[in-house]
Amino acid sequence: MTQVQQATSDYRGYRTAGVRLTEEMIPSVGAPDAAADVLEAVHQFDKAHVVMLTEEGIMPPSDGAAILRVLREIDAAGVVEARRKAGGGIHSGEHVVIRRLGEAVGGKIHLGRSSGDLTQVSSRIVLRTHFLNLIEGINRFRGALLQTAEGHLETVMPGYTHGQSAQPTTLAHQLLGWETALARDVERAQGAYGRIDVSPAGAAILTGSSFAINRRRTAALLGFSRPMRNTFDAILQHDDELEVGAVLAVHSHNMARFADDLMLWSTGEFGMVVIPDRYCGTSSIMMQKRNPYALEHIKGVLGEAVGSLMASFLVEKGPTGLPIMERIYGMAPVRSALTDATRDLTWMADMIPAMTVKVDVMHDVAGAFWGQATDVAAALVDELGMNWRSAHQIVGILVRLAEERGVSSHDVTGDLLDEAAIEYMGTPAGLPEPALRAALDTAAFVRRRKLYGGPAATAVKECWAEYSDQLERDREWAANRREDQDKAAAALEAAIDGVLHLDAGGNGDGAR
Amino acid sequence: MTQVQQATSDYRGYRTAGVRLTEEMIPSVGAPDAAADVLEAVHQFDKAHVVMLTEEGIMPPSDGAAILRVLREIDAAGVVEARRKAGGGIHSGEHVVIRRLGEAVGGKIHLGRSSGDLTQVSSRIVLRTHFLNLIEGINRFRGALLQTAEGHLETVMPGYTHGQSAQPTTLAHQLLGWETALARDVERAQGAYGRIDVSPAGAAILTGSSFAINRRRTAALLGFSRPMRNTFDAILQHDDELEVGAVLAVHSHNMARFADDLMLWSTGEFGMVVIPDRYCGTSSIMMQKRNPYALEHIKGVLGEAVGSLMASFLVEKGPTGLPIMERIYGMAPVRSALTDATRDLTWMADMIPAMTVKVDVMHDVAGAFWGQATDVAAALVDELGMNWRSAHQIVGILVRLAEERGVSSHDVTGDLLDEAAIEYMGTPAGLPEPALRAALDTAAFVRRRKLYGGPAATAVKECWAEYSDQLERDREWAANRREDQDKAAAALEAAIDGVLHLDAGGNGDGAR
Amino acid sequence: MTQVQQATSDYRGYRTAGVRLTEEMIPSVGAPDAAADVLEAVHQFDKAHVVMLTEEGIMPPSDGAAILRVLREIDAAGVVEARRKAGGGIHSGEHVVIRRLGEAVGGKIHLGRSSGDLTQVSSRIVLRTHFLNLIEGINRFRGALLQTAEGHLETVMPGYTHGQSAQPTTLAHQLLGWETALARDVERAQGAYGRIDVSPAGAAILTGSSFAINRRRTAALLGFSRPMRNTFDAILQHDDELEVGAVLAVHSHNMARFADDLMLWSTGEFGMVVIPDRYCGTSSIMMQKRNPYALEHIKGVLGEAVGSLMASFLVEKGPTGLPIMERIYGMAPVRSALTDATRDLTWMADMIPAMTVKVDVMHDVAGAFWGQATDVAAALVDELGMNWRSAHQIVGILVRLAEERGVSSHDVTGDLLDEAAIEYMGTPAGLPEPALRAALDTAAFVRRRKLYGGPAATAVKECWAEYSDQLERDREWAANRREDQDKAAAALEAAIDGVLHLDAGGNGDGAR
Amino acid sequence: MTQVQQATSDYRGYRTAGVRLTEEMIPSVGAPDAAADVLEAVHQFDKAHVVMLTEEGIMPPSDGAAILRVLREIDAAGVVEARRKAGGGIHSGEHVVIRRLGEAVGGKIHLGRSSGDLTQVSSRIVLRTHFLNLIEGINRFRGALLQTAEGHLETVMPGYTHGQSAQPTTLAHQLLGWETALARDVERAQGAYGRIDVSPAGAAILTGSSFAINRRRTAALLGFSRPMRNTFDAILQHDDELEVGAVLAVHSHNMARFADDLMLWSTGEFGMVVIPDRYCGTSSIMMQKRNPYALEHIKGVLGEAVGSLMASFLVEKGPTGLPIMERIYGMAPVRSALTDATRDLTWMADMIPAMTVKVDVMHDVAGAFWGQATDVAAALVDELGMNWRSAHQIVGILVRLAEERGVSSHDVTGDLLDEAAIEYMGTPAGLPEPALRAALDTAAFVRRRKLYGGPAATAVKECWAEYSDQLERDREWAANRREDQDKAAAALEAAIDGVLHLDAGGNGDGAR
Repeated sequence: MTQVQQATSDYRGYRTAGVRLTEEMIPSVGAPDAAADVLEAVHQFDKAHVVMLTEEGIMPPSDGAAILRVLREIDAAGVVEARRKAGGGIHSGEHVVIRRLGEAVGGKIHLGRSSGDLTQVSSRIVLRTHFLNLIEGINRFRGALLQTAEGHLETVMPGYTHGQSAQPTTLAHQLLGWETALARDVERAQGAYGRIDVSPAGAAILTGSSFAINRRRTAALLGFSRPMRNTFDAILQHDDELEVGAVLAVHSHNMARFADDLMLWSTGEFGMVVIPDRYCGTSSIMMQKRNPYALEHIKGVLGEAVGSLMASFLVEKGPTGLPIMERIYGMAPVRSALTDATRDLTWMADMIPAMTVKVDVMHDVAGAFWGQATDVAAALVDELGMNWRSAHQIVGILVRLAEERGVSSHDVTGDLLDEAAIEYMGTPAGLPEPALRAALDTAAFVRRRKLYGGPAATAVKECWAEYSDQLERDREWAANRREDQDKAAAALEAAIDGVLHLDAGGNGDGAR
Repeated sequence: MTQVQQATSDYRGYRTAGVRLTEEMIPSVGAPDAAADVLEAVHQFDKAHVVMLTEEGIMPPSDGAAILRVLREIDAAGVVEARRKAGGGIHSGEHVVIRRLGEAVGGKIHLGRSSGDLTQVSSRIVLRTHFLNLIEGINRFRGALLQTAEGHLETVMPGYTHGQSAQPTTLAHQLLGWETALARDVERAQGAYGRIDVSPAGAAILTGSSFAINRRRTAALLGFSRPMRNTFDAILQHDDELEVGAVLAVHSHNMARFADDLMLWSTGEFGMVVIPDRYCGTSSIMMQKRNPYALEHIKGVLGEAVGSLMASFLVEKGPTGLPIMERIYGMAPVRSALTDATRDLTWMADMIPAMTVKVDVMHDVAGAFWGQATDVAAALVDELGMNWRSAHQIVGILVRLAEERGVSSHDVTGDLLDEAAIEYMGTPAGLPEPALRAALDTAAFVRRRKLYGGPAATAVKECWAEYSDQLERDREWAANRREDQDKAAAALEAAIDGVLHLDAGGNGDGAR
Repeated sequence: MTQVQQATSDYRGYRTAGVRLTEEMIPSVGAPDAAADVLEAVHQFDKAHVVMLTEEGIMPPSDGAAILRVLREIDAAGVVEARRKAGGGIHSGEHVVIRRLGEAVGGKIHLGRSSGDLTQVSSRIVLRTHFLNLIEGINRFRGALLQTAEGHLETVMPGYTHGQSAQPTTLAHQLLGWETALARDVERAQGAYGRIDVSPAGAAILTGSSFAINRRRTAALLGFSRPMRNTFDAILQHDDELEVGAVLAVHSHNMARFADDLMLWSTGEFGMVVIPDRYCGTSSIMMQKRNPYALEHIKGVLGEAVGSLMASFLVEKGPTGLPIMERIYGMAPVRSALTDATRDLTWMADMIPAMTVKVDVMHDVAGAFWGQATDVAAALVDELGMNWRSAHQIVGILVRLAEERGVSSHDVTGDLLDEAAIEYMGTPAGLPEPALRAALDTAAFVRRRKLYGGPAATAVKECWAEYSDQLERDREWAANRREDQDKAAAALEAAIDGVLHLDAGGNGDGAR
Repeated sequence: MTQVQQATSDYRGYRTAGVRLTEEMIPSVGAPDAAADVLEAVHQFDKAHVVMLTEEGIMPPSDGAAILRVLREIDAAGVVEARRKAGGGIHSGEHVVIRRLGEAVGGKIHLGRSSGDLTQVSSRIVLRTHFLNLIEGINRFRGALLQTAEGHLETVMPGYTHGQSAQPTTLAHQLLGWETALARDVERAQGAYGRIDVSPAGAAILTGSSFAINRRRTAALLGFSRPMRNTFDAILQHDDELEVGAVLAVHSHNMARFADDLMLWSTGEFGMVVIPDRYCGTSSIMMQKRNPYALEHIKGVLGEAVGSLMASFLVEKGPTGLPIMERIYGMAPVRSALTDATRDLTWMADMIPAMTVKVDVMHDVAGAFWGQATDVAAALVDELGMNWRSAHQIVGILVRLAEERGVSSHDVTGDLLDEAAIEYMGTPAGLPEPALRAALDTAAFVRRRKLYGGPAATAVKECWAEYSDQLERDREWAANRREDQDKAAAALEAAIDGVLHLDAGGNGDGAR
């Protein structure tokens, strides 16, 4: 028995003092433990790599089968637990197979690949999975928005600019506006997905390998759309990972903004919605509090996402290939933010249909701060043929006078409008009272906005198919990607069966 | 003559003390001067809006024609100069037409739109233009990379990881790797372009308008692909602008990384390339210096792009519609970074083909630090059937021994390899000397990497069409977008001619 | 006449094709034009350097005097204009003196220093000035806060947490809270000032000089507290500049937060303050709007400050001395943010005392959403000896019951409290009605909080001297720094006079 | 037995369905588990708060003693474990005491304070501890730098600017430069420490309490320098926490830069230092690699620190008191970065003295790329009275000619210098050969730089006491702070003893 075989039971990985380097490494200097999803992904790669090596005749079927049997044992034992226990992080598969089969056989698993492959293949598998989860989560939230909007086509509420009441709109119109932003988030995520879902496998560390490996086969076994066309690019350029962080950050901006809207609407002062109690905490001394914790988390995730993007830009800076270990400090928080963002979508998809909408409050607030003023000027144009700018200025004076005299928009009269007109142009306006009343009616204000894309219920209904069709297409896209992944996973297991069968048929003895 | 008409010669805009508000605004509180490209874009919008209003019968042809004649006078005088002189920023068009035509006519220009339209329409036109310039610049740089790579298919050089010499590759392979990243930058920019190139026009501030404006017509006159489907979304959600900053930041990362590579390669110590003097400065006291200023600027633009993206995330945070003036502090630097990034591409497209490549130095360095060691292990596998891990460890010991004894990779012998093998497994390796020599030959190292995507000249040639075809497609895409913009600009002028003709035919007298 | 002398009239700087480098530099590759304050600072350094060289006998008095006379001519002509016209950026002084005096004399100005000195000396002078302006601006705003607070010691208003009404406090207490944060901003700025106000002059590019220059003298002539003790550090380490950006960013956070408070308080829905019209804009179509532009700018500056800090961290990353030109992309926006931050303080120091405080609204809102609930529980503890947690839970049930039944905090009775108590512990609470009423009185709520640091007027008055004394000390500190700078400027001019006098006395003829 | 007492064994905290809110909270909506150091800090606060309540007569001695006994049992069981097991996060102390003592007694622990106190008191204790650890770590690293520098006062090496060899300096001079930056890091950290080390205890959520609590006493028992002077400020303003992140980020910049220097110096191409093997990994396929993992981690921490700072700025944005749960997403990564930064300092303090310095390589490289050129010009000035600019230009031409002809700096002759001089001014320079040789001698180059702060060994020695004295002072400062904390911890335990004794003496029976 050679030393190689004797050495295996206590195999601790390739970086031990006395081989290349003279000292053991200080433990904290190594990479932190690989995340659970990374270990799962690496395990898939281990299997696909051995299948490919065997199919291509680079590894004898008996060796391939022996290794694959051990890898299936790991499956049975629980990938994450078994590999964590074995140590070695992304190399834990090699640890197990060498310990079980000896270095003479187990030492073949890493033939024709490098830690670079392991890192980048697993990163792409993990990000692909995260992004598919995220896209499905966004689509569910979009569905909830459409559903909720349908019930509020005529729920008049104020729209805001500069933090001030601007004009009346409807809750449906605003919720569909949110949906539109989320549809763009999905478009961006789909674009990123396409760039992530390509295979670095076989690129080794930057030059590929002198062994006759088949990169297309490994790519297919891992469900990637194709192998990347430049091995240097595949391992050492990371703009795709930055894009992932950026797409997430933009999405998180949208989500945090919606959360900020809801926080504002649910203050006592605004009082327009009530967040369901299951999303709220209270205070240890202010027992009246209904604090919308979930919304606060969603806003926090914006910080998490943007912060991790910033970290990524910093750690990735430098000559190509120089940052390697640094990258953990960018990618780990990005992945954590992806997980949190997916959690948040679950909440929102439930919360929006469930929240209490104070329809009357919304309606009253929409007219409480002169949000309809625009249409008084429009009435001067429509009824009296006045130019817009003069009409605008006259109503500006009207609002000031009303404010000075404590008159609300609902109580203003044609006389005050005439006073304003005289102040501006020397003559009264003469707007008929019914026209003034109609201009000041918030529901009518909204109904008049029936242009394409506008808030009138008629306009929203006209666009409804645009919203729902796009969502339907996006759901199909996600379902197709999900199916692709499932099929590839099945194909990999079938290919393993093939190797095991070949080995069994070929020599009737897979043991050594 | 009414007061309205008397007032016009000194028209100072709608925000004057005594109308809505009682005090003049402190000048520094207003928005800073609009940028030149914003003014150009707003001017196009002014024209398209008046054409649409006239065509739809919302504005009398005589008024429309009068206003359009004034807008064409502005064209003749130079849009930026004339509008800057008029004051009022994005509202400078209204300033001019009211001063020239009186408020009774000129005051109609703003009918059915808001500052929100002006801001968002101009933002999208400006960003669309910037992005098309950027994409064309990237494509030119990609062309320069392909051209340079063609001459260096067999120029062996080291690849690096962890800042340490890793394995030999070729200059062509690395340059094509860069090209691949840039191709992704173009994909991302095309995706963003598609989301930018849609029209908010007619969305006013969030609800559109009670006037019967035709949003599809305005969109077409401005060359947008379609009107945005939700007016709230069109004005108050800004994820598209964040995406623009993010796409630019990711691209800037790639560019800065290439610049960092070149800076390293052009140090005295690396000595692999010489940057053309026209891109270098020298020192006021260290006259030996050839400082690669251009590369430093390119790296600086990464900071500019990421910094402005971070600023954007901060200023956009808050309830929808709350940040308005804040946004200047994000968008202005993003646009500045876009301009700088386009400049940088011009430099790089010229510099890369023009730089001096020290082919001999590159070759020597590729073998100077044991970059070929991987293939000594591969030889043990190929020649002797050894498993990878044992081979790897033996060569690890070999390198350590060689280092301890001051033996270079080129001078190492089979004896030392045997010594290492004995240390590892108790027996010599017995690798034939020619196999050892071949393993240590850097050019042969590269030639052996003929797998798909690898650095061998044969492998690169096989993929060549993939590179050049994608570039060709991307160039066509950009040419088509350029043509779209040109056609829309021509169509707008033709539509103006139509209005003027209509007015001339209608009453034979456009003056008032 | 030598070629040197002939060459001078068209002197274009040291970086011309044919000397060290063979090509002219592409213009855009050079540094952008130096900012006005940088040119002013460099001019001071030019003068101090020549004085020192002459005093130390390194430069003949006649040469020193000749150069200083030219530098004073630049003063007379306007430093920024004259130096901009001369070209050469930070080297514009050398351009002028060589053109006027020939290279034989003018070429001596740069003896014993480098562009590194020019850059770092001017950076420190500029940042020192900016920071002193900033500190003075903060102190003025603090004064305005104290003044405003004095008038609102009993103005009850709600405090908020989680965006929800929390407990009653007073406007004075909150404004003094703001003041406390600003006092910390000043402490941080003073700390940074101490680290900035040290002299790199004479450090050249990293090793100083072989000439016998006197670094202490130059430091004194420029008003620095002392020369930096390591020349490598003085030029190539930039943590001080990062600190400047960081201190500004933290201050901008405070300012933006105050602005966000005011924006919220000035919404129609909150309605607690009215921002003076001079700080507001209105809308081009929504003439009712009073948009608080100034507050929005202040919030934008947070983005500017943090964005420029992030840019700085990115561009400064790398081996020491590697980023040089990159740094412009970090420092320029930091300086711009400093200017804007100082502007914002001017606004706020005027706005806070001038804004309309709706005392009645504040008072009503403080009690409108059960902000006093805490003290109902306290009454149960105080009056009935109940433990805190049980009291807290009982009042929590009370609030829920009141909400379910539409009873406001002001109308709640002991009966309902008893119902809540029974629900919690099976027995009624039995709180005397006067105790319940007192607990629910918002003004009394505040008056009961007379602990150190609390909002009761008595407590605030007790701490008043702490506030005002610290402000007084900080004002003195700033006045002393201002005086230091003024004295140093005068000393420099006196030293120049000394050199000119020496030259006049020495040979009666300073011309050559 | 009342319901209150019956309810206690299964006490789950105050936020249960049926009290204030009607639904149980979705578990993921709550705050994540408190970190270990937060729990330790909260435990101290629990103890100090109960002591103060008892001493002030707000809590009966028997109740205080009973609670303190339970808290000491938690100490005995292990604070983190016991409190994690109890659930409730920062409120875990209340969970335990209510479960053990019933609500009638245990429910008194939270009297007069809020979750806001718990959060901010623990945050300040944790950050104070982290910062003291960090400062001590920096001081140790500074000591290692001084020690290493002492052995390299004459180790000539190149200094770099623009990534290019600039001028010769010494390793000692550069290491002391690093030390100077670290000394500023300590100054900044001390400043921040002073602002952190103040007590929010008793501020409750923003108004303090109606109970007669003694904030000074609690502050003293927790080792804080003083209570904060405004309760609103104490809880709801967080600029101190942003400062902590900013100071850490600036320090991390310095550390990452040093790491980048070492990475560059340890490349094969530079070859100036060898990082000890215990800080290096190797590759799974490139067995020659000695990858400096520790340096990469240090660079990664820059990303972590700046990213978490960016996250903090984002999550803290908004009206005062609006972000609460969001803050976790900023503070948690800041604390993690603090821990990592302290780890990194341990490595560096060991690595710098232990690394192999290739003195000969450093010396050779310092002269290999014309770093001495500056002094050839100085020789023309010193020996021939030439002006600096002409001398500079002539040597610029010399370097170009030498480069064109393949002549190294060591082989250049007076003839070539004369040729350069003729090219510039028509006449030869005539520099004596010994002067040229002396100018080109790198060791002499350094020796000539004996000005204050310069690299000559004599100059460094002159400044030595400045370095070591400052370090000594900073060590004393840290030792005093450590002692303060230890004393306060002891005083708290003594005060607990006092309460227990009082209770024992008072009624001889703490049970109820």
